[in-house]
Amino acid sequence: MNTCPKKQPQSPDRAQIDDLVERLCASYADGIGVNHSEGLNLPREAEILELLHDLVELIFPGFAEREAESADTIRFSVGDLLIRSHHRLTDLLCRVFRYTCKTISENCDCKAKAATVAGEVLAELPVIRDVMKTDVQAAYEGDPAARNKQEVIMSYPGLRAITIHRIAHALFTRKVPMIPRMMSEYAHRITGIDIHPGAKIGRAFFIDHGTGVVIGETAEIGDNVKLYQGVTLGALSFPKDACGMIIKGAKRHPTIEDDVTIYAGATILGAVVIGKGSVIGGNVWLTHSTEPGTRITIAKPDLTSEKKPRP
Amino acid sequence: MNTCPKKQPQSPDRAQIDDLVERLCASYADGIGVNHSEGLNLPREAEILELLHDLVELIFPGFAEREAESADTIRFSVGDLLIRSHHRLTDLLCRVFRYTCKTISENCDCKAKAATVAGEVLAELPVIRDVMKTDVQAAYEGDPAARNKQEVIMSYPGLRAITIHRIAHALFTRKVPMIPRMMSEYAHRITGIDIHPGAKIGRAFFIDHGTGVVIGETAEIGDNVKLYQGVTLGALSFPKDACGMIIKGAKRHPTIEDDVTIYAGATILGAVVIGKGSVIGGNVWLTHSTEPGTRITIAKPDLTSEKKPRP
Amino acid sequence: MNTCPKKQPQSPDRAQIDDLVERLCASYADGIGVNHSEGLNLPREAEILELLHDLVELIFPGFAEREAESADTIRFSVGDLLIRSHHRLTDLLCRVFRYTCKTISENCDCKAKAATVAGEVLAELPVIRDVMKTDVQAAYEGDPAARNKQEVIMSYPGLRAITIHRIAHALFTRKVPMIPRMMSEYAHRITGIDIHPGAKIGRAFFIDHGTGVVIGETAEIGDNVKLYQGVTLGALSFPKDACGMIIKGAKRHPTIEDDVTIYAGATILGAVVIGKGSVIGGNVWLTHSTEPGTRITIAKPDLTSEKKPRP
Amino acid sequence: MNTCPKKQPQSPDRAQIDDLVERLCASYADGIGVNHSEGLNLPREAEILELLHDLVELIFPGFAEREAESADTIRFSVGDLLIRSHHRLTDLLCRVFRYTCKTISENCDCKAKAATVAGEVLAELPVIRDVMKTDVQAAYEGDPAARNKQEVIMSYPGLRAITIHRIAHALFTRKVPMIPRMMSEYAHRITGIDIHPGAKIGRAFFIDHGTGVVIGETAEIGDNVKLYQGVTLGALSFPKDACGMIIKGAKRHPTIEDDVTIYAGATILGAVVIGKGSVIGGNVWLTHSTEPGTRITIAKPDLTSEKKPRP
Amino acid sequence: MNTCPKKQPQSPDRAQIDDLVERLCASYADGIGVNHSEGLNLPREAEILELLHDLVELIFPGFAEREAESADTIRFSVGDLLIRSHHRLTDLLCRVFRYTCKTISENCDCKAKAATVAGEVLAELPVIRDVMKTDVQAAYEGDPAARNKQEVIMSYPGLRAITIHRIAHALFTRKVPMIPRMMSEYAHRITGIDIHPGAKIGRAFFIDHGTGVVIGETAEIGDNVKLYQGVTLGALSFPKDACGMIIKGAKRHPTIEDDVTIYAGATILGAVVIGKGSVIGGNVWLTHSTEPGTRITIAKPDLTSEKKPRP
Amino acid sequence: MNTCPKKQPQSPDRAQIDDLVERLCASYADGIGVNHSEGLNLPREAEILELLHDLVELIFPGFAEREAESADTIRFSVGDLLIRSHHRLTDLLCRVFRYTCKTISENCDCKAKAATVAGEVLAELPVIRDVMKTDVQAAYEGDPAARNKQEVIMSYPGLRAITIHRIAHALFTRKVPMIPRMMSEYAHRITGIDIHPGAKIGRAFFIDHGTGVVIGETAEIGDNVKLYQGVTLGALSFPKDACGMIIKGAKRHPTIEDDVTIYAGATILGAVVIGKGSVIGGNVWLTHSTEPGTRITIAKPDLTSEKKPRP
Repeated sequence: MNTCPKKQPQSPDRAQIDDLVERLCASYADGIGVNHSEGLNLPREAEILELLHDLVELIFPGFAEREAESADTIRFSVGDLLIRSHHRLTDLLCRVFRYTCKTISENCDCKAKAATVAGEVLAELPVIRDVMKTDVQAAYEGDPAARNKQEVIMSYPGLRAITIHRIAHALFTRKVPMIPRMMSEYAHRITGIDIHPGAKIGRAFFIDHGTGVVIGETAEIGDNVKLYQGVTLGALSFPKDACGMIIKGAKRHPTIEDDVTIYAGATILGAVVIGKGSVIGGNVWLTHSTEPGTRITIAKPDLTSEKKPRP
Repeated sequence: MNTCPKKQPQSPDRAQIDDLVERLCASYADGIGVNHSEGLNLPREAEILELLHDLVELIFPGFAEREAESADTIRFSVGDLLIRSHHRLTDLLCRVFRYTCKTISENCDCKAKAATVAGEVLAELPVIRDVMKTDVQAAYEGDPAARNKQEVIMSYPGLRAITIHRIAHALFTRKVPMIPRMMSEYAHRITGIDIHPGAKIGRAFFIDHGTGVVIGETAEIGDNVKLYQGVTLGALSFPKDACGMIIKGAKRHPTIEDDVTIYAGATILGAVVIGKGSVIGGNVWLTHSTEPGTRITIAKPDLTSEKKPRP
Repeated sequence: MNTCPKKQPQSPDRAQIDDLVERLCASYADGIGVNHSEGLNLPREAEILELLHDLVELIFPGFAEREAESADTIRFSVGDLLIRSHHRLTDLLCRVFRYTCKTISENCDCKAKAATVAGEVLAELPVIRDVMKTDVQAAYEGDPAARNKQEVIMSYPGLRAITIHRIAHALFTRKVPMIPRMMSEYAHRITGIDIHPGAKIGRAFFIDHGTGVVIGETAEIGDNVKLYQGVTLGALSFPKDACGMIIKGAKRHPTIEDDVTIYAGATILGAVVIGKGSVIGGNVWLTHSTEPGTRITIAKPDLTSEKKPRP
Repeated sequence: MNTCPKKQPQSPDRAQIDDLVERLCASYADGIGVNHSEGLNLPREAEILELLHDLVELIFPGFAEREAESADTIRFSVGDLLIRSHHRLTDLLCRVFRYTCKTISENCDCKAKAATVAGEVLAELPVIRDVMKTDVQAAYEGDPAARNKQEVIMSYPGLRAITIHRIAHALFTRKVPMIPRMMSEYAHRITGIDIHPGAKIGRAFFIDHGTGVVIGETAEIGDNVKLYQGVTLGALSFPKDACGMIIKGAKRHPTIEDDVTIYAGATILGAVVIGKGSVIGGNVWLTHSTEPGTRITIAKPDLTSEKKPRP
Repeated sequence: MNTCPKKQPQSPDRAQIDDLVERLCASYADGIGVNHSEGLNLPREAEILELLHDLVELIFPGFAEREAESADTIRFSVGDLLIRSHHRLTDLLCRVFRYTCKTISENCDCKAKAATVAGEVLAELPVIRDVMKTDVQAAYEGDPAARNKQEVIMSYPGLRAITIHRIAHALFTRKVPMIPRMMSEYAHRITGIDIHPGAKIGRAFFIDHGTGVVIGETAEIGDNVKLYQGVTLGALSFPKDACGMIIKGAKRHPTIEDDVTIYAGATILGAVVIGKGSVIGGNVWLTHSTEPGTRITIAKPDLTSEKKPRP
Repeated sequence: MNTCPKKQPQSPDRAQIDDLVERLCASYADGIGVNHSEGLNLPREAEILELLHDLVELIFPGFAEREAESADTIRFSVGDLLIRSHHRLTDLLCRVFRYTCKTISENCDCKAKAATVAGEVLAELPVIRDVMKTDVQAAYEGDPAARNKQEVIMSYPGLRAITIHRIAHALFTRKVPMIPRMMSEYAHRITGIDIHPGAKIGRAFFIDHGTGVVIGETAEIGDNVKLYQGVTLGALSFPKDACGMIIKGAKRHPTIEDDVTIYAGATILGAVVIGKGSVIGGNVWLTHSTEPGTRITIAKPDLTSEKKPRP
């Protein structure tokens, strides 16, 4: 016989819930991994994404938004986006500056600093857009499968990672804590490309496929550089000071000069220099510098080839 | 003393915003990276995802939607999804055809072409579903961790990438611009598996783990092929014509015959043929063809093993 | 002349739609890849994500939610989240238990089992949180780029993957079907890190960058272990029984003892043991055990370096 | 000087919140005005509105939904809406039947009753639609301002109130508790027209303007009746039984025969009969029956007219 | 014993659903009350409300939107709102013009007409705003309970109804079908005030409380007029032509000259003139004109007052 | 022939938009009807509704929310709602206090005042809930159509208006500007019942049907009072001071003693007293006080009854 849904699913036992609440709250008491609690209200990922969405819309207008725009009247929506971005960025900056300062006194000037930095970063957007045009061109020319530039903008993960990196880097160079890293990890998540916001990257940069690419904090990349999936520009070891403490910010990642191509799976470690125009082959593992115009390929690996027995 | 929130956060300086608006709008004037502006309204990613969501629901009904369905009455929701998909796909196709034609004259027949292609692609859905059943079976049999087929459908990234690929490929073979690539990049983003929509893939295809897999535009894959994470089926070089221009669409990726298994990290480059039933070992780097039934493994690498000194 | 939008886009042909509906419904008749149809209503991904969102909020409160909380009154929202999670988890568990039992009789006790398991898993949250604190600490100490622990929690994909793994593992050890795998595949999707929910992982575990990491079902990892991107802890072959059937659950993945570091791209296969304090170098391919305190690096690969000809 | 936002707004005092929680929970203990608490889960208004939205869409398709439909293929969305409505209505009915029965035993047949009633009510939709066509016609003919019938359907509050009433009445006549009243109060809220779901209303019914109209539970209205705003068809007194208890359901409201017009503000009280073709003037207060074909108007009221003094 | 949720709620019987679908679709075949079906796609209420929301935001900026604006930079959001409103209004106008013309030929100029009217109506917004300022002032002065003008704008239903009326009237005077009426019925719904969009209303108009107010299509209202709840400015009868057909648009509602006050519940019917400065008392029923400066009150009604017997 | 959608709908003319922007911004310059502009950020209706939603949920738990609660664990969600309400109310209060003070100096104590008032109002919720129980009882006993108390809570507009009034009144008595009026106008909008937040209302108050009821600021209502639709408790005239200025807050509305019933459409004006136990009949117009126990009815109106001529 068909019966009615019965009573509500039995709620969890009150004693059990009470006990769990107590244990969790006790665990929060040291403040580790607890946001918002003491008035320190760090950015949440959703806020970072909203901001990024608007900034990317300003760089490549029309790709995310539903409403049509005409060239004639687009400046109103541009202005609107800029003002909204200014407010949001100022607010986020203020919160991370305050967290870092740990000064919550009436007299801190985090707010003024936040507004200044927000203004500077927004003022860089036209510059970033101009550089991005060279990135688009590089992808279009570098990939035989690319039919036109719109397709590159719409769908290439490499381009998306670089767009976000250039924004994050503008924040990083102004010593903004946390936000640049949250941005680059977002790019990492949606593209598999992990570029530390500290990396310096030139014009006309192209990453094809991209999954597994890692570019470290002190890497420097010239113009017209092209990377394939799985390339690592990493650190060999971490320089330490006399006391054995890691020296933060010390140069420890490669410098890639102009016009270099690095094929899939290559690993370049340490503060080496890959000379202008070099070509690094797939799967190469490199921990020393190269002269300009060098072509390095992995030696033919020894393969064992055998005829499979008939089952 | 506790005080009120003060005045609104100071708005950005009007002169600064005005200046930025002018600079950005000037930068848009060349039309590079600007959608919607001149009446050309390319697809946005959100539209592609809505369409894909519905098509996947038609292939594996009930996995994404909230409302329960019975076998008896499911045809109403199937019909509804088909009609909605037809409208959406026709609209998207019309826009990309127009963009490609650049003919915005009254007399273009992009719309008729769009409706025809949309009809053809939808008519392929039952065929795609039948092939997908063999893919599900292959995953279920190929992974000892798979407890049942529903689990495969619900959670295997390989299966998701293949589902989207089969839809994108149906569009690609009808010469639809941009949309197939947007679909495949979406699959790439959520799975780390980058299959160009041009690749031809047979029945019972299984990719395990999948992160970092790259399958190129002219790759051809037979039935019962199994790939692991990090496998690349790439191009060794791009064939060029007499003038040195890359020949678009020329065969430049591997052909994998039936019953081949390729282990993690293997790289196969160029228009080679991996013979039926071959097994390619992990990390193998291969730029030549193999006979059917060949087993290729990387030669034991030389490892340096040392006892770490006591600190 | 500017004209009005014309008639609605022509609807698809009725006969075509009718035919497609019939073909698809016929294809569903075998029930393969059809959820909801016969009263079996498996979890959908959206439900898993809602649950995970709440559980992660309980472990690191304040990072996802909008509303501010004070330490004083946070217990109300903690209790609320716990109760909601209990209901949702019980409901999901009940459905997967029923699916597995295939007993839909009035007398099954799936519901009771579901409530019990839900209670047990929630009761483990404080323990998981305590272990996670050591993971945060390990990331903070292990990455010179980490400026503070909040940044680790907010943005490190490795930490996110481990958080989800520890929840999924708590379900896996209670023989919950499907849900743990859906959780781990979600973590895989957003981080590129693929940890099977069966893997046993100790305290202070750190994965840097992470893309491409694969950790198999029967892997065991001690305390203070550190992995870089692209590391595989996989199976060499699948143990089979006398009849040649794969033995499910048999140990086939590595055991990593305490204090081991494994660098990027290393592959360790089979039920080997990597001894306490070992260091495995980048790209190493290892299928045998190591003594404690061993440092293994790939032998200098033979590189071919040539000067590129001037163009 | 411009300063940062300070600490989080001070949370409310913990002791105060604890105290309030205790007082409120103590107040809930008698169960008055508490839903969900003891497993009795009554409908919520949002659920009623979702159901109504779908039912009205079935009666006047296309007025609420975004997606276009063609006559050729509309049956798929109609079927889909019917199935969804059947599920929702069955669920809601089951809950109110259970609440009324107060029998939560395993053996109640509320579910079967709910499914039966849901089926019956849906089966009445075509009939309701046919009657609604006469209502639309009556509004179109009765209002000189109505330009076409679509306008009536889109914007006339009277029509909306009647549509909802006819659905609510179909539930009321099947002795469904609570839901019909929730529906009619929703109509009341958005139109100012308060029709008890028990009222029996004939074909071609038109209410103009409508605000303030009240039609009681046992009112009966023939065909071609027209009401203006502020008309009350109420009860004069409540019939009581020998013990002085109000007799529920006893006839206490007017019967309005065919072809009657009642102008704004008229009040008709008690179980009187307004004969066929009568016309009741504005503001009339009537507590007795009228012969067919009677015209009743308020006697010229005495007005005091004076010239205002110049200020 | 506690058991699992059983099978899905039995779906409705397939035969029943099929039958209902057929009956409903057959009923739709005459096209009555069916939108979208033949390519005629009338506005939906949700679209009207989105448009109204934006237009009201332009008149009283900041009351509905979340984001703060400064006077300095508000012009960007104003421009953005204007452009969006222009697109939406043009689209809606085009659809209703086409519906009215019933000409779906390639050569209709509905689109051009729509763009022109949209431009004209938007160009009237500053004028409407200036008149609205006098309405706000009138409410502030006329209601002793009004503490300041912001409160009037935020919460007075009379002001909201008038705002919407002034927009709807701007459309009505340009012979826009359906949309003005949909707007005024929306105002009616949320305020209980029913002003036909054809009514001509002067400056500094104030309606207090408002519920039940009805103002007919050809009513004309001067400056500084004040109405209370329940006032009707209606038609006494509908002028007919020689054939007995109602003459559409003929003057049939009152003209209220400047500086008139009409108290609650008063009813004024027919094309009468209420002279400048007159005061009409509560509940007065008036069907003739008054001289300027007349004060009309209802004669003391005869009340029957009796002492209730002690129970 | 079927053609593609053409170019984007022509955007509005740039010159026209520019001109309109200038005119609107110029009109905003006086600040009338502009929110947010100068840092004064008044509440928006959406904020008021979110707050009201939570407060009503605290008074009648379970009627609006989706998730089930058990009596055992409801205190967590109660605490959570209280804390959220405290934050929201404090924020709203702070903003209206600041607006009223017009002091934006660093030293204002609006924030402290806001927190205090918020605490007081929340502390009154248990009291309000206890009084509301008598209101529910009164509705249940007073309406023969009410089948049970849950139905009253779920669907009676009178009860909803009173619930909101009691909350608004708690704010009004603490001299909170604007917010109480916004709440009462919301109640007015959804019920047609307009109760000024200043009105004092006793226990067991019942309004049946309700549309058109108006209760003025200085009205006082005892216990066990019952009103029907269309009742006005208004002011006859506004007391003025020696200079002719309206005296704000002076008593000008009726006092209704305990146990009074007032039938539909009755109007009582001025600071009169309706004695305990009186009954005021429908449509009565009353401007003088009554003794306790008086029954007042309108004298039989003169009706003109005529037989309509046969057409």
